[in-house]
Amino acid sequence: MTPTIGVFDSGFGGLTVLRALIARAPHARFAFLGDSARLPYGSKSRRTIARYAAESARFLVEEQGAEYLVIACNTASALALDAIQAAVPSSIPVIGVIEPGAEAAQRASKTGDVLVIATDATVQSHAYAAACQARGLRALEKACPLLVPLVEEGWTSPDPFSLDLEAYAAQAAPAPPQVAVTAEVFRIYFAELTAQAASLGLNPDTLVLGCTHYPLLMPLIQQAIPPNMRAIDSAESAAEAVCKLIEAGAAPGTGDSAGAKRVPPNAQLRCFATDSVEKFERLGSRFLGRPVGQVQLVDLGG
Amino acid sequence: MTPTIGVFDSGFGGLTVLRALIARAPHARFAFLGDSARLPYGSKSRRTIARYAAESARFLVEEQGAEYLVIACNTASALALDAIQAAVPSSIPVIGVIEPGAEAAQRASKTGDVLVIATDATVQSHAYAAACQARGLRALEKACPLLVPLVEEGWTSPDPFSLDLEAYAAQAAPAPPQVAVTAEVFRIYFAELTAQAASLGLNPDTLVLGCTHYPLLMPLIQQAIPPNMRAIDSAESAAEAVCKLIEAGAAPGTGDSAGAKRVPPNAQLRCFATDSVEKFERLGSRFLGRPVGQVQLVDLGG
Repeated sequence: MTPTIGVFDSGFGGLTVLRALIARAPHARFAFLGDSARLPYGSKSRRTIARYAAESARFLVEEQGAEYLVIACNTASALALDAIQAAVPSSIPVIGVIEPGAEAAQRASKTGDVLVIATDATVQSHAYAAACQARGLRALEKACPLLVPLVEEGWTSPDPFSLDLEAYAAQAAPAPPQVAVTAEVFRIYFAELTAQAASLGLNPDTLVLGCTHYPLLMPLIQQAIPPNMRAIDSAESAAEAVCKLIEAGAAPGTGDSAGAKRVPPNAQLRCFATDSVEKFERLGSRFLGRPVGQVQLVDLGG
Repeated sequence: MTPTIGVFDSGFGGLTVLRALIARAPHARFAFLGDSARLPYGSKSRRTIARYAAESARFLVEEQGAEYLVIACNTASALALDAIQAAVPSSIPVIGVIEPGAEAAQRASKTGDVLVIATDATVQSHAYAAACQARGLRALEKACPLLVPLVEEGWTSPDPFSLDLEAYAAQAAPAPPQVAVTAEVFRIYFAELTAQAASLGLNPDTLVLGCTHYPLLMPLIQQAIPPNMRAIDSAESAAEAVCKLIEAGAAPGTGDSAGAKRVPPNAQLRCFATDSVEKFERLGSRFLGRPVGQVQLVDLGG
């Protein structure tokens, strides 16, 4: 059977997680919901976030038939994972972005010391630090509030998802001034973070990108960090975790994964937003790496 | 009598307008309300913004005794000025930031061509273009979405309100890299705007800062624009308009302005927010140019 995967975010940054999922499970059906009318979640209380996220989760399960739920939003993953699981049948696996990111950091790190960059709200929740600590890692977190607006303004490298760094470096044209600004902003944040790590006696060898917008900065980040440091994209890590669950047949209705492979690799995708369909359609394709198509407006109440 | 001035914003950017007001009317009483729980207004419908702004206006008039209302928020000024005036007694003058900014541009401009920088929401409303056009000016607007997060991150010059440019330029230390980033971001936006103006055959000599966050960038902006271009701070313009009304005794309870001058120059200020008191207290003092003191949380409903 073809699994139906529901992906939820407070905005459209979670489309980078959807992109990673489609690359790994091209035979699946996807429904993406961006609760854009009620963003930013980061400034709201845990109780309000839990209510919003539970409503969104129910929409994906009850109205879109999702058999897996991916919470492609760091704030909701940090503060509302339990509430979301309680809002849907217990047979539906609910996967956030934080645990898979911490797990990938554990696999990557030899020194056990990890750096995490994220939004202010995610850092204030200390969810990554807790998830890393539970795995025996020491994690130092830093809020980088300018990176999201820089990504939304499009001041990234021409093909932000390209990891072909040689081709990137060999580009004849110099980086346009916009991209240079973004690189400099990352350099400033990263220098502050590594200086703080050194002052604490840490020896970090892993950098976790703890925000769904940051995968679009991957080429810039790879160029700026030391060659022996590994950058972990938590969107990729979450997608990997979901696909492992699907392969293990952990959800009802997935069953025969050989059967799934017979379905042509042509992901079926429906996108929904609670507001700002225009911005979603305009910016979403850059995050998804392909056209998002028509975005349907849904009303989940106030 | 000492007038009571109510100042309203969706966040705390409007503290720059309050700052300009206190400098001009140090004898007045002030009540500032930041409707931070419901920001950003920019992504919401006109109807919703009008409802929020009317509720905030009534709080300032009915519970804080405001005799003048200053709408220190470009989005609410553009979309809800009528609704606010309708929500309070007609004897209360309601002053937005857009009309005073356009009026100052008219006084400053010799060529009649004006540039406006603002947030995405303000530019999409075209409120400045309309207010300028009504005064016989041609205005070209540009959204500069990165400037607000740069100001909130504190990447401004050490004393952002200083207009002592010689002292600023003579500083022995080079601008820290954070300030250099902000200067470069403004340079990129301004270059795009002037190139577009040239392609349209405009000859602009005036730049309107159409966002309450931008006054903190004034030293950087003054250094980046041509010497023959005048930068208009719409916070200053709005404060000037309010003080003219007070001097004219246009509101009830102001009356004897000689009496007002006998009151010692020690503005009385109460600050209220609907959420995020922590951020308000942390960042507010930089916008106000003095401590905001304790911020009281108020609940205006959902």
